[in-house]
Amino acid sequence: MENKKRVLTGDRPTGPLHLGHYVGSLKNRIKLQDEGYEMFNIIADFQVLTDRLDTSEVEQNIKGLVLDYLSLGMDPKKTNIFVQSKVPQISELFVYFTMLVSVARAGQNPTIKEEVKATGKGNMSLGMLSLGVSQAADILAFNADLVPVGEDQLPHIEQTRDIAKIFNSKFKEIFTLPKAMLSDTPRLLGLDANQKMSKSRGNAIFLTDSKDEVIKKIKKAKTDSEKHIAYDKKNRPALANLILMYSIFSGEDISSIEKKYQGKGYKEFKEDLAEVLNNFLDPIRQKRKELEKDSGFIAEVLQRGTKKAQEETEKTLKKVREALKYDYKDLGF
Amino acid sequence: MENKKRVLTGDRPTGPLHLGHYVGSLKNRIKLQDEGYEMFNIIADFQVLTDRLDTSEVEQNIKGLVLDYLSLGMDPKKTNIFVQSKVPQISELFVYFTMLVSVARAGQNPTIKEEVKATGKGNMSLGMLSLGVSQAADILAFNADLVPVGEDQLPHIEQTRDIAKIFNSKFKEIFTLPKAMLSDTPRLLGLDANQKMSKSRGNAIFLTDSKDEVIKKIKKAKTDSEKHIAYDKKNRPALANLILMYSIFSGEDISSIEKKYQGKGYKEFKEDLAEVLNNFLDPIRQKRKELEKDSGFIAEVLQRGTKKAQEETEKTLKKVREALKYDYKDLGF
Repeated sequence: MENKKRVLTGDRPTGPLHLGHYVGSLKNRIKLQDEGYEMFNIIADFQVLTDRLDTSEVEQNIKGLVLDYLSLGMDPKKTNIFVQSKVPQISELFVYFTMLVSVARAGQNPTIKEEVKATGKGNMSLGMLSLGVSQAADILAFNADLVPVGEDQLPHIEQTRDIAKIFNSKFKEIFTLPKAMLSDTPRLLGLDANQKMSKSRGNAIFLTDSKDEVIKKIKKAKTDSEKHIAYDKKNRPALANLILMYSIFSGEDISSIEKKYQGKGYKEFKEDLAEVLNNFLDPIRQKRKELEKDSGFIAEVLQRGTKKAQEETEKTLKKVREALKYDYKDLGF
Repeated sequence: MENKKRVLTGDRPTGPLHLGHYVGSLKNRIKLQDEGYEMFNIIADFQVLTDRLDTSEVEQNIKGLVLDYLSLGMDPKKTNIFVQSKVPQISELFVYFTMLVSVARAGQNPTIKEEVKATGKGNMSLGMLSLGVSQAADILAFNADLVPVGEDQLPHIEQTRDIAKIFNSKFKEIFTLPKAMLSDTPRLLGLDANQKMSKSRGNAIFLTDSKDEVIKKIKKAKTDSEKHIAYDKKNRPALANLILMYSIFSGEDISSIEKKYQGKGYKEFKEDLAEVLNNFLDPIRQKRKELEKDSGFIAEVLQRGTKKAQEETEKTLKKVREALKYDYKDLGF
């Protein structure tokens, strides 16, 4: 259909996906894909460099991400998976956008503000200061209608909308103002229950973890000294997070889980939770194993997705150059 | 020959060239070209946007610049004239470089410092703050050996060398450290003798000025009340500038000019100066008229130069991507 809404979403290739990614984002992406949205999934490799210059694992991470995506049910026929640095149109649009945004406005972005706190404004890389502008180029190059984000990401989308508005008013009405699509899924904490699940905090269960790794990790997961199984997010956040995990991946609701484990201890609960997670992960592992047999397939998926991304962004860039009077038709371009 | 030194030079397409450009830069470019340097001449259209969003004249200015170049004797077979925004490799390299430079270092550039004074740091566009990094991408994409600059531009080259050094040490020794090539020509002041010749100050003689315009402009050029013709840069800067102009474009040295006009007044001197300038400009005007007859030629020159620029920068970018491990050969790129 003609007016299928377009969604732009994606990840930095900084490591494998974990259950937190699945619950907070990937589950939703697969759902949107299957509901018929036109999906573009960016692997934002330029953005890896905003906070590190060690790029030794980037290619491996890209490959791993695609394996993660596909084994979760992302369908490359429905979702275009592409690599940011291989779409020159995005870089060109980024350059134009740097001209439209003041230095002050560029910094009004929570990720950048955090970085300023951590490293000081002067020490931050110009690339980090440009992160919001770069994300705007990612989104607007596709004229995306919707961008699925967490609540903390809303200011990023606001910045993108601002840039679209500036361009539209100074030059020509080209850009759709993209809308944030807030996820209603509860955020998964890590197994330490201190912070959200993340690779760098070592508190994550990855899609690539083996059965035994999952059992071991859950066994060591933080609980408390109260012993009985009851959901109390405020006073017993670690256990509540495990119960939530159980509920999400088993489909059982929280109260029936509480009932089921009445009079039972952490050991039994944790063994069952590991089983629930392994039951969820088993078909994903199976799919991954099959995908890994066909070594050319990942490349094929990325080539096809990147080509499509180039074609679609070129349509936007043609309009942009024309609006800027940078198309130079009389000069043979 | 294999080890022909490569030169990167160029202009922003913000208006026609004037005699100040010729004396300060173009004369030298033609000389370098004829001495066998490998010349790349960038028309830096992205950079127009750093300080203005009115782009209505950019295409016309590009065309005018090429006409200026060719009528001055630039040979498109020896000098590759190309348009910055049409070389995607430059934008890609710019993105990588933004990651290597701190915000503080980006601002250590006289053009940017001037802009900070004028508009305040926050109000400056991100593109203006990135100007030095963008110029570094222009130069290093070609691995240029030499960049002809005025003394005020030395910090720009220093910034470029810094970025090259960072890349070479963090990733791989890819980049030649470009050297500034200082021009020894005296700087021409405008006809108001207040500041250097420039379009925005209305004190310039353009290559495109007609005979009558030149006569009129020289007639109105600032002098002083002393009447006699003598070169005294410190106390009589306006007349000294006119004598310098006379000397440069006639080839006569200053003392013989002084002698020639002993006992004569400004009127006669100015009439002769206008003639000297018109004698210089006449063949340029003639060449331009011929070039304007062949409407396809300018486009042809730009297409050829831009294609060559793409090819040469692609060689550099291949090395850059490989050094960054962003070539992704296993993924089909």
